Formats: sequence, structure tokens, C-alpha cells
Amino acid sequence: MINFKIGIIGAGGIATGRHIPAFKEIEGVSVYGVFDVNHVRAKEVAATFSIEFVAESEEQLLRHVDAVVICTPNKFHHQSVMKALDAGKHVFCEKPMAIASHEAIEMEEAAKKAEKVLQIGYHYRFKKESLAAKKAIVAGSIGDPLVVRVEAMRRRKVPGWGVFTNKDIQGGGCLMDYGCHLLDLALWLMDYPEIELVEGQTYEMVSRDPDQVNEWGIYDATTIDVEDHATAFIKFKNGATMLFETSWAANVPSDKESLSISGTKGGISVFPYALNKAEQGIMTTTVADWISGEENEGLAQARHFISSCLEGREPLVKPNEAKIVTAVIEQIYQKSN
Amino acid sequence: MINFKIGIIGAGGIATGRHIPAFKEIEGVSVYGVFDVNHVRAKEVAATFSIEFVAESEEQLLRHVDAVVICTPNKFHHQSVMKALDAGKHVFCEKPMAIASHEAIEMEEAAKKAEKVLQIGYHYRFKKESLAAKKAIVAGSIGDPLVVRVEAMRRRKVPGWGVFTNKDIQGGGCLMDYGCHLLDLALWLMDYPEIELVEGQTYEMVSRDPDQVNEWGIYDATTIDVEDHATAFIKFKNGATMLFETSWAANVPSDKESLSISGTKGGISVFPYALNKAEQGIMTTTVADWISGEENEGLAQARHFISSCLEGREPLVKPNEAKIVTAVIEQIYQKSN
Amino acid sequence: MINFKIGIIGAGGIATGRHIPAFKEIEGVSVYGVFDVNHVRAKEVAATFSIEFVAESEEQLLRHVDAVVICTPNKFHHQSVMKALDAGKHVFCEKPMAIASHEAIEMEEAAKKAEKVLQIGYHYRFKKESLAAKKAIVAGSIGDPLVVRVEAMRRRKVPGWGVFTNKDIQGGGCLMDYGCHLLDLALWLMDYPEIELVEGQTYEMVSRDPDQVNEWGIYDATTIDVEDHATAFIKFKNGATMLFETSWAANVPSDKESLSISGTKGGISVFPYALNKAEQGIMTTTVADWISGEENEGLAQARHFISSCLEGREPLVKPNEAKIVTAVIEQIYQKSN
Amino acid sequence: MINFKIGIIGAGGIATGRHIPAFKEIEGVSVYGVFDVNHVRAKEVAATFSIEFVAESEEQLLRHVDAVVICTPNKFHHQSVMKALDAGKHVFCEKPMAIASHEAIEMEEAAKKAEKVLQIGYHYRFKKESLAAKKAIVAGSIGDPLVVRVEAMRRRKVPGWGVFTNKDIQGGGCLMDYGCHLLDLALWLMDYPEIELVEGQTYEMVSRDPDQVNEWGIYDATTIDVEDHATAFIKFKNGATMLFETSWAANVPSDKESLSISGTKGGISVFPYALNKAEQGIMTTTVADWISGEENEGLAQARHFISSCLEGREPLVKPNEAKIVTAVIEQIYQKSN
Amino acid sequence: MINFKIGIIGAGGIATGRHIPAFKEIEGVSVYGVFDVNHVRAKEVAATFSIEFVAESEEQLLRHVDAVVICTPNKFHHQSVMKALDAGKHVFCEKPMAIASHEAIEMEEAAKKAEKVLQIGYHYRFKKESLAAKKAIVAGSIGDPLVVRVEAMRRRKVPGWGVFTNKDIQGGGCLMDYGCHLLDLALWLMDYPEIELVEGQTYEMVSRDPDQVNEWGIYDATTIDVEDHATAFIKFKNGATMLFETSWAANVPSDKESLSISGTKGGISVFPYALNKAEQGIMTTTVADWISGEENEGLAQARHFISSCLEGREPLVKPNEAKIVTAVIEQIYQKSN
Amino acid sequence: MINFKIGIIGAGGIATGRHIPAFKEIEGVSVYGVFDVNHVRAKEVAATFSIEFVAESEEQLLRHVDAVVICTPNKFHHQSVMKALDAGKHVFCEKPMAIASHEAIEMEEAAKKAEKVLQIGYHYRFKKESLAAKKAIVAGSIGDPLVVRVEAMRRRKVPGWGVFTNKDIQGGGCLMDYGCHLLDLALWLMDYPEIELVEGQTYEMVSRDPDQVNEWGIYDATTIDVEDHATAFIKFKNGATMLFETSWAANVPSDKESLSISGTKGGISVFPYALNKAEQGIMTTTVADWISGEENEGLAQARHFISSCLEGREPLVKPNEAKIVTAVIEQIYQKSN
Repeated sequence: MINFKIGIIGAGGIATGRHIPAFKEIEGVSVYGVFDVNHVRAKEVAATFSIEFVAESEEQLLRHVDAVVICTPNKFHHQSVMKALDAGKHVFCEKPMAIASHEAIEMEEAAKKAEKVLQIGYHYRFKKESLAAKKAIVAGSIGDPLVVRVEAMRRRKVPGWGVFTNKDIQGGGCLMDYGCHLLDLALWLMDYPEIELVEGQTYEMVSRDPDQVNEWGIYDATTIDVEDHATAFIKFKNGATMLFETSWAANVPSDKESLSISGTKGGISVFPYALNKAEQGIMTTTVADWISGEENEGLAQARHFISSCLEGREPLVKPNEAKIVTAVIEQIYQKSN
Repeated sequence: MINFKIGIIGAGGIATGRHIPAFKEIEGVSVYGVFDVNHVRAKEVAATFSIEFVAESEEQLLRHVDAVVICTPNKFHHQSVMKALDAGKHVFCEKPMAIASHEAIEMEEAAKKAEKVLQIGYHYRFKKESLAAKKAIVAGSIGDPLVVRVEAMRRRKVPGWGVFTNKDIQGGGCLMDYGCHLLDLALWLMDYPEIELVEGQTYEMVSRDPDQVNEWGIYDATTIDVEDHATAFIKFKNGATMLFETSWAANVPSDKESLSISGTKGGISVFPYALNKAEQGIMTTTVADWISGEENEGLAQARHFISSCLEGREPLVKPNEAKIVTAVIEQIYQKSN
Repeated sequence: MINFKIGIIGAGGIATGRHIPAFKEIEGVSVYGVFDVNHVRAKEVAATFSIEFVAESEEQLLRHVDAVVICTPNKFHHQSVMKALDAGKHVFCEKPMAIASHEAIEMEEAAKKAEKVLQIGYHYRFKKESLAAKKAIVAGSIGDPLVVRVEAMRRRKVPGWGVFTNKDIQGGGCLMDYGCHLLDLALWLMDYPEIELVEGQTYEMVSRDPDQVNEWGIYDATTIDVEDHATAFIKFKNGATMLFETSWAANVPSDKESLSISGTKGGISVFPYALNKAEQGIMTTTVADWISGEENEGLAQARHFISSCLEGREPLVKPNEAKIVTAVIEQIYQKSN
Repeated sequence: MINFKIGIIGAGGIATGRHIPAFKEIEGVSVYGVFDVNHVRAKEVAATFSIEFVAESEEQLLRHVDAVVICTPNKFHHQSVMKALDAGKHVFCEKPMAIASHEAIEMEEAAKKAEKVLQIGYHYRFKKESLAAKKAIVAGSIGDPLVVRVEAMRRRKVPGWGVFTNKDIQGGGCLMDYGCHLLDLALWLMDYPEIELVEGQTYEMVSRDPDQVNEWGIYDATTIDVEDHATAFIKFKNGATMLFETSWAANVPSDKESLSISGTKGGISVFPYALNKAEQGIMTTTVADWISGEENEGLAQARHFISSCLEGREPLVKPNEAKIVTAVIEQIYQKSN
Repeated sequence: MINFKIGIIGAGGIATGRHIPAFKEIEGVSVYGVFDVNHVRAKEVAATFSIEFVAESEEQLLRHVDAVVICTPNKFHHQSVMKALDAGKHVFCEKPMAIASHEAIEMEEAAKKAEKVLQIGYHYRFKKESLAAKKAIVAGSIGDPLVVRVEAMRRRKVPGWGVFTNKDIQGGGCLMDYGCHLLDLALWLMDYPEIELVEGQTYEMVSRDPDQVNEWGIYDATTIDVEDHATAFIKFKNGATMLFETSWAANVPSDKESLSISGTKGGISVFPYALNKAEQGIMTTTVADWISGEENEGLAQARHFISSCLEGREPLVKPNEAKIVTAVIEQIYQKSN
Repeated sequence: MINFKIGIIGAGGIATGRHIPAFKEIEGVSVYGVFDVNHVRAKEVAATFSIEFVAESEEQLLRHVDAVVICTPNKFHHQSVMKALDAGKHVFCEKPMAIASHEAIEMEEAAKKAEKVLQIGYHYRFKKESLAAKKAIVAGSIGDPLVVRVEAMRRRKVPGWGVFTNKDIQGGGCLMDYGCHLLDLALWLMDYPEIELVEGQTYEMVSRDPDQVNEWGIYDATTIDVEDHATAFIKFKNGATMLFETSWAANVPSDKESLSISGTKGGISVFPYALNKAEQGIMTTTVADWISGEENEGLAQARHFISSCLEGREPLVKPNEAKIVTAVIEQIYQKSN
């Protein structure tokens, strides 16, 4: 029986809410150690989850584990990943890969050089609907994608905890934190075609209202300095286009998380899964009544990381894809007035 | 009692289906004459609708009427409008104003010089929901528009009659014929802000399938040479953006005709009319249970044209707005791969 | 231009409501003559539908037409068809083919010998959903049919007109008149497999209540002598089974007209069309949003008859199939207590 | 205060999931002892449920209790029941009563001779809807039953645990395990009328697919040797008929558990409870908004067994009824190709 | 074959829209003559409906007919009815019977003395749901009525035609014109129990807004002098109470026309028909899926009048009931502030 | 940090289910002591909720706390409140304030004299929808209230525990216990206008049936002596009227808890929150998609009481309002036959 040791770097909500429970559930894997700049927090988390070792530094942690899971704020992804790869460890890094495109490029190269797994936490790909949609598209159900529509919209859900509204630490708002998931998923379903141009615009106005109605706790409307809404248009060299919109605080009637693609042979919607066709005289819609597989996409993602490490296989979410997400986001910010 | 005489130029389906019945219903107005290059057709239409005079030429018709309604294919809008204005007549011209931007500019100038009404047939503005939305926006309900979304989507409804699939005569397909309505409506609701850039792409693939499933009759899949689908992204100088999509033949689950705007103070959907707000601790949606006004937008449009002529008032759908629709469409075609 | 002359035998509701209008709509076909034992009725129908010739006898009518449409009560189908085939005419005969199995066998042989078309009026096959289901089954969508379920159920709709409740003239009630359609459709979709056994039971009780609630007019509860409800179970030599139920007057919550098949690879429902599958990890349901083809199944059936006659082609609803429907019904009656 | 001692024979899932918790909840009753051929399992269960006595043999257990609950695989029901009755104990035996009809007959006779309660676990009768339907039928609401329809259909739910797919031990598949419940319920609601004939067919094909989609865990598609689907038709001497279908793995759009009866005076559906009538000029549907009684049918069943034992009353689910269920199932297997 | 001659007094909308077509449809009845103070109107109506005789006066009309239908404004009901009874004619009088209670009393006495039928036009009683509810109540389904709720509510439907908003001529607004129907129906379903007290209040405010949104045409908000809304509470000597509300222009979310009764044994709702019970351990709701009878209540009412006249039978809507409706309305007006 | 000590008087279900948990959740507040005439019950409750002090008498408890929460049966509210105020303590008293109007008047005066908070437990006011409705009404959304409708209806939910069915101890049934909440809420939303008259009637019949179907446990149908249903009509001096109905056991199709108001400018429904308007040519309905604030109205009420005590502020639910509720209920009882 394998004993594959995982170290956690950054003991915040994403570590305790998603990754630690997931890795603990996998046979042959132990969450061995944890490091956080807030040592008290690290110790509490270790106690809660029966983690053996509370490290004094990332370096110390790296000496005792086979792989690390990077759960720090976005700004620190780059440095932690570089250190871990340099120490010859496999790395699972939360999304986004990095704030800046040039950091992502360095990280990708470091992974290649280290010959280690570097998997980015775009877990939307591990949802059952996403995997089913990918399978259908690969099987040719929709032909070539022509038009992709992404809506990652929350009406009034600015995160009222953590550092989400701090641009310096997180690099951005809804686009960097939430829209990135759907952007990666859309690009993956399209097979990451070459991009011709990116146009876009970010917005900041709605969330600055001091009397903000907000469903996800209370944030400081006077200090928030990240975008609350963004639109984009991506044109690909193969002629496909993507209409993209994401928000944390939009004047829309309800939250909406949708991704649909119209192709040459059919169309697909991912959430919920539905396929439309028009052939042999019939227009049809096919819905999924039940999809087999792991319900918990965080667990599926963790299992995938472990098997990639053990089998020396490239992970599903690859550095050279995740870096493109970062590059697109970077361009949207640059193009904004 | 006034007797305002209308002449019809082009006796096709739009004349018989919409304009002749509408103008005939207005008190004090008579549909006096008709001209069509197909004289037999003109005579039949005259008989059906009890129209007194069947003209031998546009020039002849112009001598006997107070205003003309131009219902010719798109290619001929420019020449007919120029002749009519030159003859000192008021003109109602079906949409689009013209195929080419430079034609539209000339038409606008001619109208100004002639000091006559030139109204373009963007009748979506006369729908009750459109008028209600405009009123709400003018009253400040949504604040400043930030993001506008337009979907003018038909699943499989390529027109199987007329000259709709002929690029030379019509200038384009779904964008020129159908999407233009929603584009004008969206720009009008936004108060026609200055455009910074237009990006877009047209598609032609789906409608070329020889075994096409099509709900609106049969067209020749080997000769159709217009686009069946288009996407666009428009950025405005005030920072607003529009996500736009239109189609006659898309792989989508159903037809969808929607226009929604998220602004700084609220959001609005036009079809059906619904307003969303988030203020004073409550997120609300307001729907219209009933809207007063004329149910038949074609009739409302006709009445508006007549009163504009009689009162010497600028019409709701102005040349300097309609020319912008034509310019945007022109740019989408130019930007397409 | 062809002039194919049709003669109508029996000028009742099925002739005036379905067949005469349908055949009149087909180019190249004329409904030339009509015969009815009630000569006054025949003349009225001829006047209403501008039918040229009112015959004094079937024999006289047969001399002037290319084909006849038999719309007499069930009891008379056999004799009229035999006469017409003997006279060398194509024959369209309303369902059921005959009351007794031995009659149907004679009719099939007569058609073969005469080398003429004999099409039976099971028009449910010409519904768009039926044709789409047949196409899907032939394409292998459901594999081999295992279980077929038929429900042709009306809650309280005993026909309050015509001779429907008279056993001598019609041969039976709901099974003979209504259930036969779905029975034929089910057998056709299964490709008329060889039957191993038929079990069944008819009922007569509910419709004999003198205070009957009935949606389709008033009938005489003291003289009705046909069944109002029937159940059956058919086992086929290939192991498939059919669960069958039909009624005119059942204590059920609502009318229900359904036909579904579970096969080795998938399942299908015909009204409305829906296909279910469970493969590659997904259970799906596919519905038809729109099916191309003729909306009016009576017209589609008539067109099919004409083209079968003109092209010397065997019709879709063949005598050797329709005779099996009659044989199954006969057995259900025989097996009933 | 009574102390009525229960012994459990067979400590599998049905014992721990249903019977032990139910009997423990009844005042005056103790679950005193348990026996299982797997002694380790028996000890674990005893520990979990604080059961005092873990027997070495059925005989030993029988010496210490007032009644036993037989929860062994179907094959062993007969021998355990015979032993217990022979020892003069009351017996609750899980359904089906036995695999073979002749065993059931012996068991019934043994119970009669021993003058002890022998109740079979057809707990569907104790559902609130079932009891309400029985009450309505007894009160004459539907008159005499004419047609009964049973659908006990699961789309893809072959049990992936236990011995359910082993024919030798269980005697059959969906029919023996699941369909039997609805069959008993239907017969009971009809008042167990005399049977004239049984026709039927079992199927095995769908569940043999090695890539089976299955919602209830994983089973071995290469060793399963029980039916996954069955249809049947039962004709009763009073003229009533039953259309019956059950499945564990059918190509149907969704699971369906329904039982409906059309009678001479009305119709009833059990799940959910609904009654239809057509009298005095009105067709009505009556639904149950709320039914009083015990929500947990397992507990209701256990209480009923205890009170039957204590009051020396014949239980609701009698041996002479349960043996008919076994006989019908036996005939369906015999009639299958 | 009878020839029963009807004369129409008052040729307005209620005569042409309801009564003339209804009486014309009845075999053996002719609408022989018409009188209107506006003679031109009378002649037009006579032409439209092929009415033989246009009278110069009521007196003249009365000389030629067997019965009259009074369709004049409310103010004139009394005098026309008195004249007709005095002339020995049967009378059908539109609702309300009269504006003032003392008039109604005189009319009732006149009818008694003349021994003629005097039927008032409360046609809501002839709706199929009303008749079914009455039948159910008479059969004891709900026991004794305890609480009755009436809502005859229109959101914004002040009649924009006729004299409906003129208090002098009509005697009142929504209560006199619309609420009276439901009030009569409720009292009839309760079997017109003796009244102990009436409390109530009328309102006039909403309809006076000069920018009124109104679905039923345009009325003059400066001259309307009738109530637009009323509430009332009626207590009966048997302890029952009625909660009553009616409106033409209320700030409510939608129109609502409902009448429900809770009794000692059950409850009933009339529109749509639904019966609730709670007995024998079950709470049930029974809905009517279909009710037999005449769909057109105006025709049913007319047939009933004719048969009452011919058979010398007291009509369903009796003077001594209708006078109570008038008395209740009178009291509500008196009690209003 | 404040330590505000609460004493509980009456340790029944309302204390343990609502108030103790609520006050325990508030920072700076301790539930210090408890008194109940049943000392054993008091000790158990103290143990369960870790309450330090179990008093021997109300007087003893009053010596150790800052405020008391009165949770005794209605009959004892008066004496306990008087004692507590006399002892100079703040008082939270469960609704209704008192059984008799004269008691309530004394209590109000005592509170004024003591200069202490006396808050009555009409917690419906603290529901989010109630607070939102109040805010909207205060902002003028509906103008002046004209008609108020209250339905506090339970179909079959007579409380089967406690002393709810005992008139001597509780003073009444559904009106005193349940309807009072909605009555207070309605009056508060109307801003407690001056009452002109109250009419009403109580009922007792339905709950006396010995075979009562009841969802909330079992009560003794032979001893219940409180009303199970009541109707009322309240007219206010400003012309507004209220239609009121409440029940524990009514023959209605389902429970219904609704409060709606039609005003001069709009209408409002509280449960769920919805606002209707008709202005500027549009009839609209506005629903609340999400309302901010405390979900648990019991906690909101407790927090409000504490802050009122600490800030010396008059509470939201004032004695001079609650006494009016008691007076109205008293009048309904007096007016009943």
C-alpha cells in the first residue's frame, strides 16, 4: 500500500473546505503536513484534520512530502510553485495559475524542466456535466465549434470574507476568481484553439454603492478595488468566436452559470447538459437524466492529481492551457477603458 | 378631413402583409397608388386592396401622392428614396436604410435638404414592450447602461421565399434582415452612444447542408450566398459594451429573441418586459402584467409616420440613427474572416 | 397532367371529414363520383364537394373511375372491396380491413390476383411522430423490441352518432374502431413479428349505465351491444410481448393515447416522440422539438395511395399486415369470457 | 408491561435497515437475540443494536424467544420458517414467502397446524396510500375491479450488493425481489380473486451489457443469471385482468412505480392516491392531500405483527395469499421462452 | 310547434350580445319585436337580427308578444317590468332587479298578482360550475355553510362604454353591475338564509386618477360618480357569515372571480369547481375534470325562462331572491362613509 | 462587555423552542434563571440549557435578573407582567398581551409608570417580508390603505399538546392564539388607525367531530371549548376596512397565511412579498427575489428587546398597540352568536 504524502501550503478556506477533505478520502494518500504564514491558523487546521506535521516554512514542509497543494492568495502562487518544483515535488496549484502571464510561462517551463506534475485547480472540468460534454464533443456530436457563449453571473455575491476584493493580493475580481473557471472550461471544450484577438471591458461601478445589497456577507465598499463585472469577445484563428460575461454584482434578474456552444453539426449546453441536433428531418434536444461518475468534483480532481503523480502522466489541466487563461484575462484588463 | 395620399413602391409581401393594411386603417389617409417593376403584380395588389392608381413608373406615382412607402429589395432602397425626396415627398423606407454606409449618408443628407420626413422601418421600437422599456430607461430606472445583450436567434428558419438568400440583392442574410431590428432597438434604448470599436464574425456553414431541416419553407442550399449566423461585440466610448448574436439557422435548442441591459442602477429585459433592482435591502423583479398602447406595431409605426408628416416633426426612427445600424453591419462584414 | 379519378363508396362522416377533402387537395386527382345506399345523402355530399357524378350503384361507379375509396360500415368492407378489385380498380379501404379474418384473407388474395393496390386506412402510421419513430427504429436506435405497451384510452367518449354501438354492423366497439389503429402501429413498428399467442378480455359494463356521463354526444345505453374496454397480451415468437389496453368508457383519470417500446438498446415513445438511451455512462432522453413532413396524416395517406397506384408500388399499409390486425382482434373476442 | 422477545435470523441489510430498528421502537418488545451463519456479522450487529444474545444456531435462538424474524436469502425461507413453527414460535418471514410454490404450501400448513402467526413481509400493504386505497375499495368507491395495471419499473438499478443477482440463492431477479410487492398489493386490493390463467415472459438481455450504466452500484455483468425485466397478464375467473410489468434495468425514460385499477364504478391510483369517478353529470378526480397513519411502513408492519401475536389474530399478510404470489411468479418463469 | 313571441325592450349591448342570439336559438321561439327609445338603433338591431317588428312604444310592443326581455338601464327596470306585468306578459328582466329596494318589492308583488313569470338575469347561476356546486351542496357534501367568501375583482376594467359610470342612471358601479352576480350566486348556494346584519363600505378613489390605466376602453375620470370598489360583511341568523369584495379598479395583482364556502362537513370552491373534505383519516380535494350541460349560460338561462313560461313554473331566479340582492346592495351604500 | 441577565417565567414549549435559544445567542446576554410552577420541569429545562438559577418563585427570580420573559399560559400574563414591572424589571411578554382588555390597559399603564420596556411577542412583525412591506408602505408605495385582507387559515391543525383547547386558561382558540399575529401585523402595516366598528363571528363546530382528522397530534374532541374558526370585519374611521378570517380546523383546500392590502396608489402582499402598481400605462407586479436581514424572526425579536432595554427605547411592539389587538378579539367574541 502506497503512502503518498501531501503538504498543504496556505491553510485558508479553500484548503479546509475543498482540498484537505478530498485528499484525506483517497486511499494510500496522507495529508502529512501544513504550512501557513499564520502559524496559529496552521496549527488549528492541523488539529481539526489530524495533520501530523505543522511546518515552520515552505522549505521545511517540502522536505517531508511527495507533493504540495498551493492554496495561498493568487499573488503568491508563482513563488510557491517555483520553490516546490525546484525541490522536485509534484504540485497542485489553485487557480488562477498566476496573476501575470510572464509568471505562468516561467511556471510551465519549471514544471517541464523538473519533470514533475503541475496541475492547476480548474475543477469545473471535473464536474460530471463537463466530462460528458467533452466526451460528446470529442465524439463529433456538434462538429466544429463556431460560437461559444459563457455567462458566469452572480447577481449580488461579492465575497464578504478573505482577500477577494483586494487587487494587489488577488490580481482582480470576478474575472480572476470566478470567470476564469468557465473560461478555461470553454477553451478546453473547444480544444484550446489559437486565439486571434481578445476584446473586453471590466466594470467596477455597481459594487461601490455603500448601501450594497449583498448575499455573501459584508465587504467594505470603500476599499474594494477589483472589477465586479466583465465582458469579452474572443475571436479564434479558425473563425470561432466566444461571447463572454462574468460578474459578482450585476443588475441581472438571477444568478446564471451557463456555457453553450453552437457547432457545425449540433449545439451543446453544459449546465445542465443538453445537446441539440437538426438532422434527418427532426430537430431534437437530448438531456442527461443521469450521468455516472464522481459527484464531488473536488475529489475527482484530487484523485486525478494523485494518479497523474503516481503514473507519471500529464494531468488533465495542463500548465500550457492554464497559462492561456491567465493571458486572456490579462488582455481583458489591458483592453478595458 | 385630411386626405393624405400614400404611394406604395414595391408590391411584395412586406407591402401587402404590413404596410398597405396599416395605412388603410388610418383615418384621413388613403393608399392611393402603387408601383412595382412587375406590373401584373402591382395590378393584382391594387385590385385586392382597392387601390385607385397603378403607376407605370416611380416618377409617375410620385406626381400623385403626398408620401411614398418604399418596399423594394434592400439594394434599391437608396435610389427610390433619393428620387422621392428629390420630388419633395415624405418617405417611409423599409429597413435596412441601405446596404452600404455611404448610401445611407447620402439619403440622410437628401432628407435634411428636402426638409421632408424620412422614417426607416425599424418597427420593433413600436412594440409595447420597447416603448415601456424606453420610458423606464429615460426615467432613470436602470441608471447608465453598462452591458447590453442581444440574441436574435432562429433555430432553422431560413426564409424559403423571396430574395432573402441572394447577397447581391439583399446585401446580406440574417444580420441584414433580422438582427438589424434588435441592433437598432438596443442602440436606441442606449440613446445611440458613440461607438469606439466593432468586432464581429459571420458564419455560413450550417445553412449549406443539402438535407437542411428548415421550418420556413425550402430554399436552395446550393445558391444561398448570405450569412446564416453572426456574432459581434461593440464597445462604446462611454465604456458600455454590447454582446450581439443573430441567426437564421443555428444549432441552438430553440428560437430566442431577447434584449437585456444591465445598468448602474438596475437591469431590464425587453421581451418580455422585466426590470430588476437591488436597493434598500431588497432584490426585486418587476414584470409588466399589462401595457397600454397599440398591439399592432406596424399600425403604430404607420400612424407615427403620418403624424410626423402632418406635424412636420422628426420621426422616432431617424436617418442619423438608421445609418449607424448600417455602418455597424458593414463593419461586422468587414471584420469577418 | 394526370387525371386520376376517384370514386367514393359510402358518403358518411369519414368520407366527408377526411377522404374527400384530402383527395381533392392532390394535384392531378379528381373525386369524380360517389355512391351511397342513401341516394339523397350521396347527392347532398356531391353538391357540397362539387362531385360530378352520383352513381346509382357501386357497379356503375366502378365503370367511371380509376380507384375507389371504401367508406362503408365495417360489415360491408369485404363485399365492396371484392367487387372493386374484380372490376380491376385500385382500392383504398377504411380500417378495419374486415370484421372477420377469413374475409381479410380473401381480400388480400383478390388484390394479389388483380395486381391492384389495396391500401387499408390505418392512418396513424402517417402521423409525423410515427414516421419518425419508424425511422429511428429501422436505424437501430432501440435495438430489438422486447416490450411494447399500448394505451388507446378514452375516459367517456362513446361515439353518440353513426352506427358505432351496433355490433352486427360494426363487428365490435372500441377495439374494432379505435384500438385497431394503435395495434397496427405497434405491430408495424415491431416489423410485424410472428405471433405466438394472444390472450385478452373485453368489457361491456361501464357504458351500460343509463345515466352515463359522455363527452361525445348521447347514445342509447339500452341497445349498445359492443365492448367499451379491452385488454390483451400478445407474445411473439421472438420473445417480445405486448401489453395492450383500449377503451371508449373507462374509469381512468383522463384520456391517454400512448405507445412505447423498450428494446435491447433503447426505448421509444411515439406520442409525443421521445427516445431514451443509457450508454457511455449517460442516461439520456431525446425529444423531438420539430419534425418535418405533412401535418395532416389523412392527406399524407391519400397522397401515398395515389403515388402507389401511379407507380404500381405496394402501399405502406399492406393487406397482409392489416389482416393480422383483424386476426388479433378476432382472437381477443374469442378469448373473452 | 409485556416483554415479548424477538429473535432475528439472518443479520443482513434487511434486518439492520428495517426490522431491528422497527421492533426496537415498539413498547413491550425486545429484540433479544440474533443468529447468522456468519457469526462475526451477527456479533457486530448485536453490538450495534445492543442485542443481548448471539445464538450459535437457529435452534438455540428459538429456545429463547417468543417469535422470530426471518431475514435470510430467499432460498432459506422455507427451512427456517418450518423449524420455527415446529418450535412453536410466531414467525415473521421476509418476502417472498418461498422460491417454490410447494414450499409455500407446506409453510402455510405448518402455520395452521402450529396455530401460530406466520406473517410475510409484503410491507407495501402498510403504506398509507395502500391502506387508504383498500379502505376506499372496500367502501365500494370503484365497484368491482375490471382492469389492474402494475408498473414496478426501475431504469437502471440492478442491486450492486448482496446476492440479488444469484439465481440459485434468490430464485430470480426483479420479479422475485421487487415486482412481488406490487403483485401482492394488487391482488390484495382486488381481494385475491381466483386466477384463471397466467401468461408472461422474462427478459435478461439489457443487464448483460458489460458497460452497463447502473445507478445502484456495480454488479458483475458476466455472472448475473437472473431476469432483469418481466411482463405478465393475469386473467381472473371473475373476468378481471391484470397487465403487469417489472424491471431492474429497462430502456424506459424514468423509474415508475404505479398501480391503478379501473372498476365498474370508478378508478383508483395508489401512488399517489387518486380516485376518479364519472357520475351525476360530472367527471371528477379526488386526490389525497394528507393521509393519517404511520409514515414508516416497516414500523407499521412490525406493530401489526406484534399485535397479531399477542391477540392471536390472523395477520394482514396471510400465508394463503403470499403463497399465491409465489405461485404466480413460478408460472411466469415457466411460461417464459 | 309552439310559436312563442319575444319582445325586446332596450336594444343595447346586452340585448344584442346575449339575449337576442340566445332566444333566437331556441326552437319554437321567435324574437318578434323590439323597442328602444332610440328608434334608429332599434331599426338597425331589427335589421341585423331579422326581427320582424320595430315598435313605436313599449305599449305597442306588449300588444304583440307573449313575453318581454327588459334590457334598459337599471333605472328603468321598474317601470318597464310594471307595464309588462300589467299587460299580462311574462317578463325576463336584466339584473339588478331594481336600483331601490322598494321598487323590487312592488315588482315582486306585481308578478304574483299577474301570475306571470318574472325572472331576473342572474345568469351566473346557469354556469355549469354553479349548477354542479348547487347539486353538491343540496346533496349534503359540505353540510351547513358556515363561512362564504366572495371576490369579484377586476384590476383595471372600468367599462369604457355605455352608461356604467353614471350613478343616476345605473344606481351604482361595480357592486350594482358586477358584484351583484356573485352576491346572488352565493346567497342561492346558501339557500338564501335570513340576514341578521349587513356592514360594508364603498370606495371611489382609484378610478378618479386622470391618468388611469384601464383595460376596457376609456372613461371620463372627471365625471364618473359610481363606486369602483366595495367590501361587505353579512351575518346570517343561522350564524353563517359572508366576506364580500368586488371591484372594477383595484390595486390587486390580477383579476379574481372566486366564491368559496366552508361548511360543517366540507368546503367548496365554484370557479373552478373543487370540493374539499376531511374524513375517515384522509383530507381530499375533488376537482371536476368535465361537467356535462350547456356551455353558454346565456342560452341556458333563456331556455329556462321559456320553459318556465310554457310550463307555468316558478323560475330559478325568483323575484323574492333578487329583491334581497337589491336590499343588501342598498344597505352597503347606506353603511358607507 | 455587558452582562444583561434574563429570567424565564414559564418553562413550556414557547420558552424552550423559541426564547431561550434566541436570547442565548445574543452576545452580552445571559439566560440566568428560570421559574415554573412545575419545579421539576424548570429544573430539566435549566439542565438542558445550562441555566444557572432555578427560582422557587417569580419574586425570587425577579430579584436576580434585569428582565423577564413571560411564557406562561395567557391567563397568567397579566399577573406576571404586573409583578415584574412592579419590581422594576423590563418585560418581554408572549402574545396575546392579555385575555381581557381591561388587563391590557392596566399593564400598559404599569409599564409607563415603571418607565420600563414592555414588549409583546408579536414576532410576525420581525419576519423579513413584514419589515420590507412596512418599509414600502412607509415610503408611500401603496398610498393610503383602503382594503386589508387577512387569512390565517389552517385546515386541520388543532394543537394536540399543551392547554390550547382550554378556554379558561387560554381565553380562546385560533383567534387568541394564531389569528392575533396577523391581526397585529395588519394593524401595524396600516399604522394602527382608529377603529369605527368591529363585527365578527366565531365557530366551534368542525373540531367537535370525534373522528377528527388532525395533522398536529390528538386532542380531546369532547372537552375542547374554544373556537376553531372566526371571521371578522373591521371598519376604520378613515374609511378603510379589513376582511379577516382565521382557523385551526376549516374545510378549506389547504392552509393559507396571507395578508394583502389594496391602497390608493398600489397593492401589497406580505407572504410572499409582492407589490402591484398601475401607473404610466403599465400594470406591474414586483416580487422580492431576496430580502436582507435576520432569517430567524424569534432571534430578531429578542435582539430588538435587548437593544430597547439597553437604549431605553420604546420597542417596536408597543403596549398601546397590543392592547388594541386584545380589544378587537374581545369584541369579536362579544359579537358572536
